[in-house]
Amino acid sequence: MKLNCDLGESFGAWAMGRDAEVMPFIDQANIACGFHAGDPVVLNKTLALAAEHGVAVGAHPAYPDLNGFGRRSIPMSANELRQLLHYQISAISGMARVQGLTVDYVKPHGALYNDMMKNESIRTTVMQAVADYPEPLTLMLQATADHERHQQEASQYQLPLWFEAFADRAYQANGRLVPRSEADAVLNAEQILSRIDNLVNNQTVIAVDGTLLRFPVDSVCVHGDNDTATQLIADIRERIRAHQC
Amino acid sequence: MKLNCDLGESFGAWAMGRDAEVMPFIDQANIACGFHAGDPVVLNKTLALAAEHGVAVGAHPAYPDLNGFGRRSIPMSANELRQLLHYQISAISGMARVQGLTVDYVKPHGALYNDMMKNESIRTTVMQAVADYPEPLTLMLQATADHERHQQEASQYQLPLWFEAFADRAYQANGRLVPRSEADAVLNAEQILSRIDNLVNNQTVIAVDGTLLRFPVDSVCVHGDNDTATQLIADIRERIRAHQC
Amino acid sequence: MKLNCDLGESFGAWAMGRDAEVMPFIDQANIACGFHAGDPVVLNKTLALAAEHGVAVGAHPAYPDLNGFGRRSIPMSANELRQLLHYQISAISGMARVQGLTVDYVKPHGALYNDMMKNESIRTTVMQAVADYPEPLTLMLQATADHERHQQEASQYQLPLWFEAFADRAYQANGRLVPRSEADAVLNAEQILSRIDNLVNNQTVIAVDGTLLRFPVDSVCVHGDNDTATQLIADIRERIRAHQC
Amino acid sequence: MKLNCDLGESFGAWAMGRDAEVMPFIDQANIACGFHAGDPVVLNKTLALAAEHGVAVGAHPAYPDLNGFGRRSIPMSANELRQLLHYQISAISGMARVQGLTVDYVKPHGALYNDMMKNESIRTTVMQAVADYPEPLTLMLQATADHERHQQEASQYQLPLWFEAFADRAYQANGRLVPRSEADAVLNAEQILSRIDNLVNNQTVIAVDGTLLRFPVDSVCVHGDNDTATQLIADIRERIRAHQC
Repeated sequence: MKLNCDLGESFGAWAMGRDAEVMPFIDQANIACGFHAGDPVVLNKTLALAAEHGVAVGAHPAYPDLNGFGRRSIPMSANELRQLLHYQISAISGMARVQGLTVDYVKPHGALYNDMMKNESIRTTVMQAVADYPEPLTLMLQATADHERHQQEASQYQLPLWFEAFADRAYQANGRLVPRSEADAVLNAEQILSRIDNLVNNQTVIAVDGTLLRFPVDSVCVHGDNDTATQLIADIRERIRAHQC
Repeated sequence: MKLNCDLGESFGAWAMGRDAEVMPFIDQANIACGFHAGDPVVLNKTLALAAEHGVAVGAHPAYPDLNGFGRRSIPMSANELRQLLHYQISAISGMARVQGLTVDYVKPHGALYNDMMKNESIRTTVMQAVADYPEPLTLMLQATADHERHQQEASQYQLPLWFEAFADRAYQANGRLVPRSEADAVLNAEQILSRIDNLVNNQTVIAVDGTLLRFPVDSVCVHGDNDTATQLIADIRERIRAHQC
Repeated sequence: MKLNCDLGESFGAWAMGRDAEVMPFIDQANIACGFHAGDPVVLNKTLALAAEHGVAVGAHPAYPDLNGFGRRSIPMSANELRQLLHYQISAISGMARVQGLTVDYVKPHGALYNDMMKNESIRTTVMQAVADYPEPLTLMLQATADHERHQQEASQYQLPLWFEAFADRAYQANGRLVPRSEADAVLNAEQILSRIDNLVNNQTVIAVDGTLLRFPVDSVCVHGDNDTATQLIADIRERIRAHQC
Repeated sequence: MKLNCDLGESFGAWAMGRDAEVMPFIDQANIACGFHAGDPVVLNKTLALAAEHGVAVGAHPAYPDLNGFGRRSIPMSANELRQLLHYQISAISGMARVQGLTVDYVKPHGALYNDMMKNESIRTTVMQAVADYPEPLTLMLQATADHERHQQEASQYQLPLWFEAFADRAYQANGRLVPRSEADAVLNAEQILSRIDNLVNNQTVIAVDGTLLRFPVDSVCVHGDNDTATQLIADIRERIRAHQC
C-alpha cells in the first residue's frame, strides 16, 4: 500500500504545503499543474524533490481556477475537459522528462475529482483522455463501493486504475465520506493511525457505525500542511514499514 | 525556403487570425502555448489543422501576459525563463503527440523574441532550455548580420538553428528591421512578392538603401490576419512553387 | 423604451463588438468590468464613447472567467458573489466618475445573468449587493411572467428594477426564451423589426405560437457583433424614433 | 509620524501576512487591489479589519502580475498605466465606501513603486492619475534626497504627498536604500527600534556610515509577515506612543 500526497501547490510568492518535509515519507506525489496551483518554477522544484527521494510522480490537473483553488466546479463540454486534461498532463509530463522522470498516473484535483466520482459522463471523459495520452498512465480515483463498475468503465479504454482511501476522513457505512459539514468528519491522529493499521493488516476501512468496508485500496491519501500533519505522515510511514517487516 | 506563420492565437470567445485559410499555404506553424494567446481547445484545434495539411509544428512560447499579448518584456531570472519555456514547450509537445504529431522547433513570441535577439544572456538561456528539452528541437530566430555568432552560441548546446526573414518588413543596411515607428517600415504586397523573389532566386534581402543583405534564410515569416493577408500568402506560396519547378 | 447593448468586450489585442458603430444608436451601454472581458484600457475607451454619445452606463459584471467569457456558471457563496459584484461595480463606477459619468444600473452577464433568473437565492444576493452599493443603482433583468415576484423581491431592498426583452430571440408561450438549441430560436431581421413594432406600439411580445405576452419592458437588448447587426440596430433605432414622433 | 503596512495580500486559498494581528498597531493600511494580490473577498475582509481598528485605508495598486507578486516591471504606455491605476483605485474605493470608509491615499506596490521612484515619466503619470481621480487622494512615496523635486512635480497636479521611510532597511549616505543584495541591508529588531527613536525624536535617519539624513517623514513602513515581525510592530507602536506622552 502506497502513500500519496498533493504537492506543488505553492504559487509565486505564496507558499503552501511542506513539500520538502513530506516528500521523504511518501510514495506518490500528486503535483499541481498550474491551473489551481503551481507555476513553472514550483513544478520544476517539486519534480526535483520527487526525483531526489525516488517518489513516483502523478499529474494533479484541475479546473482553471487559481482564485478558487480548483474547488469550484466549472461546467465544460467533454472536448473542453479533454483538452484541459491533455494540456496539464503534457505540461507536467514534459517538465518531468527534462529531469529524467516520467509521470506515472493522473489524479484529478478538487472539484474535478468530486465531479469525476459523482458523474459518469465526466468520469468516462477523464478516463478516455488519460487513456488516449501517448504515455502509459494510470488513473487514481477514490475507492468506493462502486469500484467494480469503475474498473469496467476503465477497461473500455484499457486504462489501469488505482484506488485511494483517505487517511484522515471518516467513512459512512455506504462507503462514502462523512461530509465535512458534520462533526467527526475528520479523524484525529490516533484514529488515522488505527485506519492505517486496519488498511495494512486487514485491507479494510471501518465506517463510523463500525461497518467493515472492503475496498481494493492501492494508495492512501495524506496531507502535509503543517507541523503536526508532517509528523503524522512520518508516523504513518513507520506503521507501514513495521508491517512490511 | 519555408514559410512560417504565427497561429493558434485565438483565446476563448476571441478569435484571431485566419488559421484555417492560412494553413494550406505554409510549411511551419508557430503555435501559441497559452501564455500570450491560445487555450487548450485552441491548441488542439490548431494542431489538428496542422496535421490535416502536413504542416510542421513549432512551439511559440511567450511571457505570461494575456492582456499584453506577450508584447511586454517581463524581467525574470534565467531559471524562471527556463521553466517558463519548458512548461509551454511541454504543453504543446504532449498535445501534439496526442494527435500523432511532434513539435519540431521553438520560436519565441513577441517581447521574448525581441529580448532573445537583443540580449545574449536571455538568448543563451533560451538556447540551453530548448537544447535541454528531451526531444530534438530546433530554435528559430531572426536572420541577422550576427548569424555566425548565434550559430557559435548554439553549438555550445548542440542546438540546431533556423534563421527566418520577415516577408513584410523593410530592412536597414545593417540588417536590422526598420522600426515600425518609421514610414515604409511595412512593405506593400508588391514589395513583399519582390522580397520573396529575391530570397528564392538570390538568397538576398534588399535593404531600404539598396544594400544587398546576404543572410542564411531558412524560413520566411508571413502574417494572416485578414482577407488581403491570406490572399497574399497564397501568392507567396505560388512564387516559391514556381521557382521550384 | 430604451435600447441596451453589451459593450466593452474586447480584451488586450483581441477585439470584439463594434462599439464605436453601435454607440450612436443605443441608450444604455452594458460595459464589461474585466472579469469576463474588458481590461482597464478597454473600459476607459468604452466609457469615453458612452460619454461622447450621451449613452447611459451600466455595469456588466460576470463570473471570473476570461477563457469561458463568463458563460460558465461558477458556484460561489453569497458573500463571494457579493464581493465579486462590489469589486466590479466599483471598478467601473470609479472609472466612469473619472470621466464625469455615473453608472446608472447593473446588468449581470452571461452565466451570472442566467443563474440570477433561475435561482432565487442568487437573485436576492445580487439584488442586495446592488442595493447596498453606496450609489443609486437599478438592476436590469429579464422581463418574464415572474416580473411581479421579482419586483416584490427587489422592494425588500428598495432596489428599482428595469426589465429587458431580447430583440432577436423567439419567446415561448410561457414567456421564456426558445432555447438556442432549437430551430427558430434566433429571429431574422424582419422578425426583429416586427418585434420592435409590437413592443413600441402594443407593449407586447408575440410568442412562437402567437400568444401575446404582456411584460413591462423598459429596455430592449440588441447585439452589434458584425456589419449586419450594426445596420439592424440603426434600423431599430429608426423604428423607435418614428413611433415617438 | 504614522505607521503604514502592506495588507490584504492573501489570494484565494493562499494566506499571506498577519493582517488581524498587525491592524491594531498601525495607522495606515496599504491594501492590495487584486492585481498582485488580494481578491474581492480578501479586499472586503481587510477593509472590515481597517474599519474595526480605525485604520486609514490606502490603495496599493500594482502591475498585473499575480505570479510575480507585482515585483516585475511591466512596460506600459502612460495611458495604460493611468487606466491600470484608475481601475484598481476605483475597485478598492467603491468597496471601501460599501463599508462607510474612504480611501485616503495611494501607495504603488513593488516594481511599480520602484519604477515610480526611478523614472520621472512614470512618476508624473502616477501623480496625474492619482490627482485626476474624483476623490481627494494623497500619494505616498519614498522619502529621499529628492523630496523637494517630488513636491514640485506633485504641485503641478495639486497633489498632496506623504513621504515614507522604511523601518527595517539600511540607508546609504546618499539617502538611497542599501540594496538587498548587500550584507546589512536589512536591520535587526534593535536597529529598527533605534531607527524609530531617531525618527520620532530627531526627524532623522542615520545612514550606514553615520551620515544624518534629514527627510520629511510622514509615515514609516513596517512589515508583518511572521510572529517576530508582528511583535516588533507592537514594540514600534509602543515607542511612538511613549514619545507622544
